[in-house]
Amino acid sequence: MATAVANGGAAATTRVMSVYSEVQTSRLNHNLPLPSVLRGPFALLDGPPSSAAGNPAEIANLFPHLFAQPSANLAPAHSSVAQPSANLAPAHSSVAQPSANLAPAHSSVAQPSANLAPAHSSATPTPTHSLKLGVVLSGGQAPGGHNVISGIFDYLQHKAPGSTVYGFKGGPAGIMKCKYVQLTPDFVYPFRNQGGFDMICSGRDKIETPQQFKEAEDTALKLDLDGLVVIGGDDSNTNACLLAEYFRSKNIKTRVIGCPKTIDGDLKCKEVPASFGFDTACKIYSEMIGNVMVDARSTGKYYHFVRLMGRAASHITLECALQTHPNIAIIGEEVAAKKQTLKNVTDYITDIICKRAELGYNYGVILIPEGLIDFIPEVQTLIAELNEILAHDVVDEAGVWKQKLQPQCQQLFEFLPQAIQEQLLLERDPHGNVQVAKIETEKMLISMVETELEKRKAEGKYAGHFKGQSHFFGYEGRCGMPTNFDANYCYALGYAAGALLHCGKTGLISSVGNLCAPVEEWTVGGTALTSLMDVERRHGKFKPVIKKAMVELDGAPFKKFASMRDEWAIKNRYISPGPIQFMGPGANDVNHTLLLELGAVQA
Amino acid sequence: MATAVANGGAAATTRVMSVYSEVQTSRLNHNLPLPSVLRGPFALLDGPPSSAAGNPAEIANLFPHLFAQPSANLAPAHSSVAQPSANLAPAHSSVAQPSANLAPAHSSVAQPSANLAPAHSSATPTPTHSLKLGVVLSGGQAPGGHNVISGIFDYLQHKAPGSTVYGFKGGPAGIMKCKYVQLTPDFVYPFRNQGGFDMICSGRDKIETPQQFKEAEDTALKLDLDGLVVIGGDDSNTNACLLAEYFRSKNIKTRVIGCPKTIDGDLKCKEVPASFGFDTACKIYSEMIGNVMVDARSTGKYYHFVRLMGRAASHITLECALQTHPNIAIIGEEVAAKKQTLKNVTDYITDIICKRAELGYNYGVILIPEGLIDFIPEVQTLIAELNEILAHDVVDEAGVWKQKLQPQCQQLFEFLPQAIQEQLLLERDPHGNVQVAKIETEKMLISMVETELEKRKAEGKYAGHFKGQSHFFGYEGRCGMPTNFDANYCYALGYAAGALLHCGKTGLISSVGNLCAPVEEWTVGGTALTSLMDVERRHGKFKPVIKKAMVELDGAPFKKFASMRDEWAIKNRYISPGPIQFMGPGANDVNHTLLLELGAVQA
Repeated sequence: MATAVANGGAAATTRVMSVYSEVQTSRLNHNLPLPSVLRGPFALLDGPPSSAAGNPAEIANLFPHLFAQPSANLAPAHSSVAQPSANLAPAHSSVAQPSANLAPAHSSVAQPSANLAPAHSSATPTPTHSLKLGVVLSGGQAPGGHNVISGIFDYLQHKAPGSTVYGFKGGPAGIMKCKYVQLTPDFVYPFRNQGGFDMICSGRDKIETPQQFKEAEDTALKLDLDGLVVIGGDDSNTNACLLAEYFRSKNIKTRVIGCPKTIDGDLKCKEVPASFGFDTACKIYSEMIGNVMVDARSTGKYYHFVRLMGRAASHITLECALQTHPNIAIIGEEVAAKKQTLKNVTDYITDIICKRAELGYNYGVILIPEGLIDFIPEVQTLIAELNEILAHDVVDEAGVWKQKLQPQCQQLFEFLPQAIQEQLLLERDPHGNVQVAKIETEKMLISMVETELEKRKAEGKYAGHFKGQSHFFGYEGRCGMPTNFDANYCYALGYAAGALLHCGKTGLISSVGNLCAPVEEWTVGGTALTSLMDVERRHGKFKPVIKKAMVELDGAPFKKFASMRDEWAIKNRYISPGPIQFMGPGANDVNHTLLLELGAVQA
Repeated sequence: MATAVANGGAAATTRVMSVYSEVQTSRLNHNLPLPSVLRGPFALLDGPPSSAAGNPAEIANLFPHLFAQPSANLAPAHSSVAQPSANLAPAHSSVAQPSANLAPAHSSVAQPSANLAPAHSSATPTPTHSLKLGVVLSGGQAPGGHNVISGIFDYLQHKAPGSTVYGFKGGPAGIMKCKYVQLTPDFVYPFRNQGGFDMICSGRDKIETPQQFKEAEDTALKLDLDGLVVIGGDDSNTNACLLAEYFRSKNIKTRVIGCPKTIDGDLKCKEVPASFGFDTACKIYSEMIGNVMVDARSTGKYYHFVRLMGRAASHITLECALQTHPNIAIIGEEVAAKKQTLKNVTDYITDIICKRAELGYNYGVILIPEGLIDFIPEVQTLIAELNEILAHDVVDEAGVWKQKLQPQCQQLFEFLPQAIQEQLLLERDPHGNVQVAKIETEKMLISMVETELEKRKAEGKYAGHFKGQSHFFGYEGRCGMPTNFDANYCYALGYAAGALLHCGKTGLISSVGNLCAPVEEWTVGGTALTSLMDVERRHGKFKPVIKKAMVELDGAPFKKFASMRDEWAIKNRYISPGPIQFMGPGANDVNHTLLLELGAVQA
């Protein structure tokens, strides 16, 4: 296996195929279908000028060269649309500049301006035009990352022979330090359809300072890069767009295309209906949840509290709930919308446990998003007060320090289990702050529910028996072998990224749509990254952000869940999805969230 | 769905098929192959008289009616062996009584006596003879239990039409309280090839006191039971044999047959090469371990400490190691054999972490059996001393109480992480004893390794960085959908149990062999439960026990592991088995332990 490591240093991550499992080997040799538009010659059709998700004036200021860029879609080249030859515009091409009459700041989708016209330009790649591209993985692992890279690689092999792909090692730091490996067929092969990010590894560095942008520029020039594909979440794609803007402003030919990655499922919009990895991760977690449910029903004596990944949004918890029908699933966005307190959440759980006990069920399964605490306003207030007090005062054993807490905060603090109280007081991060992320929410809830049940038992309101079992399903899901869906989706995303760069596009995010149809019918294109952006005020400056997609309480997935949860709470409607299959029944199932969001099934 | 619950009370556990996943449904309709000997007419051939695993004189005393029974094997009825008609011996039949020249007490396998002869008797079931059987699940869940029941049920449907099967609910307590459900095709159907024990649930009660035996007798008489199948582990099968002996001694016609169940894999011998559930559980854990390995390699910054089920024996840890090639796997039996201390184990892990750091690897995966602590003699001594001290003395904050510990115990106590020290002092069971089982071994080891690494760093002997992540894979594995292997194996075990009872056998454990061959070639029979037994002295009395099968340090599975672990420690040879497949490559793989023990692959 040829591994042309240019600037080594990090331990080799090469896989040894002689120790592949049978399933790994079979996936290695699994041929992936492509959307039909990617199979033959195609043209890239530009849409109307775009705007921003919010504050377009600020976004226009931040991205003077890229703002208002149209999104683009691939169409078969034999379609009736005019097919100009490769329209690789020079870096300073005059893309539509924002006009004065920007969309109102509160608009949340790209506002088509008055001059909305049918696709006003199109491009086709020149078959003889070879490219030098870079690719980088950014942030946490998600199943399918290797397939995005395979897709880029294969696109170039088929459509632009003689091209070169550099894999930057260890995330964006690899770009800045010019640490890369040149991809070859032999190097790519062992990673096809395999989980993990170990082909080139990832990292959480950002290209932020002028010095860092300069380093990225040096690498782009040194490698003579025509393009760069950034595979990452909301932050990484924002960063990709800043880099695209920077290169264009400096008249550097390197274009930048993003790809939507995150198991949390919080990077999505109309044009980018899903981020990859979510499907696989949810199916792995759901397999485990289903097993635990059957265990709960078989023993009849445990309440399993399962914490699931998803710090900012509760998509994973919601999807797993739709797949498995737990007795309770807490959705952070609902807790926040209803301004619920920790006591409210505890009572909600306790009430259901009491009702179930009356029916003779002293067992159950409860799903909790890991970010739950962040959704509860009163907890945030308590943490802020604690940080302030702990920074200046001594915590005396007698508890006099507690007087400094506002009454409501004091009450909440006393409501917390002792172990959590101690954790809050003792464990601080290097800045002296309370470490909220370290709180094991599922254990905290078990303890609070236990206390509440004891109270009710004393009052004669509860006669059941309660045993809580805590679980955290996290790392198991980030690097599983991608499902057929994620494998196909990622391959198409990578192929699309190659096509967009081949057509000279920059500042777009690879966009594959119509995902509930057979792969052949999937649509392929690119969405202007600026059109997904809004700004946030940080340290007195506007910072561009791609807003995280939260669980919409009026969206189809949540409504479906809300319409069924009362039945799930009392009756046992557990579903055990079983292990992910690559062949046979269920192997090509699309997850519920996507089916419901795309309207492929009824809410 | 007809659910003929006789004595209700417990919450209904009936499954609702409308909420089955696609994979569940496909498994429901999956037809199971049978060993060819079970497909046509067969004869049951008795072997020579058996002895005991140890102390045969005592076993003979404890089982006067059953001791020395021959094991039996099924053969096609058209074989040349004499085929007497249904030889349903009366309950007081004179089975061979133990002779004076018993096998020496230290023998560990059944000693063929001098009058070892070819099969000296045989029986065939009468096709017209219908039966009334009971079945009970005993102890913890294991994937495949439902298939054993389906196998019994189908045997009777095919070979003894008009028969009745009662499923005792909630384990042996269901027998004693005569709580049962009468099985019908519609009732059994939704559980075919599904995980869990929820068809009739299980329990951990034992039939021990004279009163309890009387209750079991009352149930047997009330239901006019011809036979009872006890599906359970070593204790439950011992109990099954005691019940068989009791019924025979009382001249009651009810025969008792056991079935080998436990995911821990510690109930096995030459004639019973595997207990069911082990295969599925290990494959589920290995899927998760494989995912975590890819995650470790991708991020390059975590050491994952994975605790696995197996309190008495480390078979699961060993099997998972063979499936996934972790950097380290601790085998309890080796720790015990080498009389290792906790410090030894910590140093072993720390040494490998240091070597890996020198090679640039600051990550890894370490497997630990949950029973590790029980294998370390010094920990047992400390616990005993603590129990003694805590029962009589006050634990003063200054720590004067520690003077009461023997010097070695004091040293070990000081070596333990603070959190574990506190846990040992604070958390006691209702008898006031330290709760060893509650110690999270993986967290304890992380903490001890951390301390040791800091020491070495200070001494300039270690320059890496260490971040431990703890996992416990337990409940996820007990109720998964059975693999093809477990599904087939369990179905054959159940079918065999039906056949043995149909031939009037009692006190045998259903035995299916030649398991590495295609299902058609599997051998089927029953092994005398007394031949697996030894005695233990408890409260001044001899108690029969089926000795748990431990990991043999000179057995093929351990030797294979031992020959490869040094390479796994330093080089990364991770295998990701991926999710269990029911179709396609890998779907019919047999686990490594079984392949190696049966000599189907080279050690």
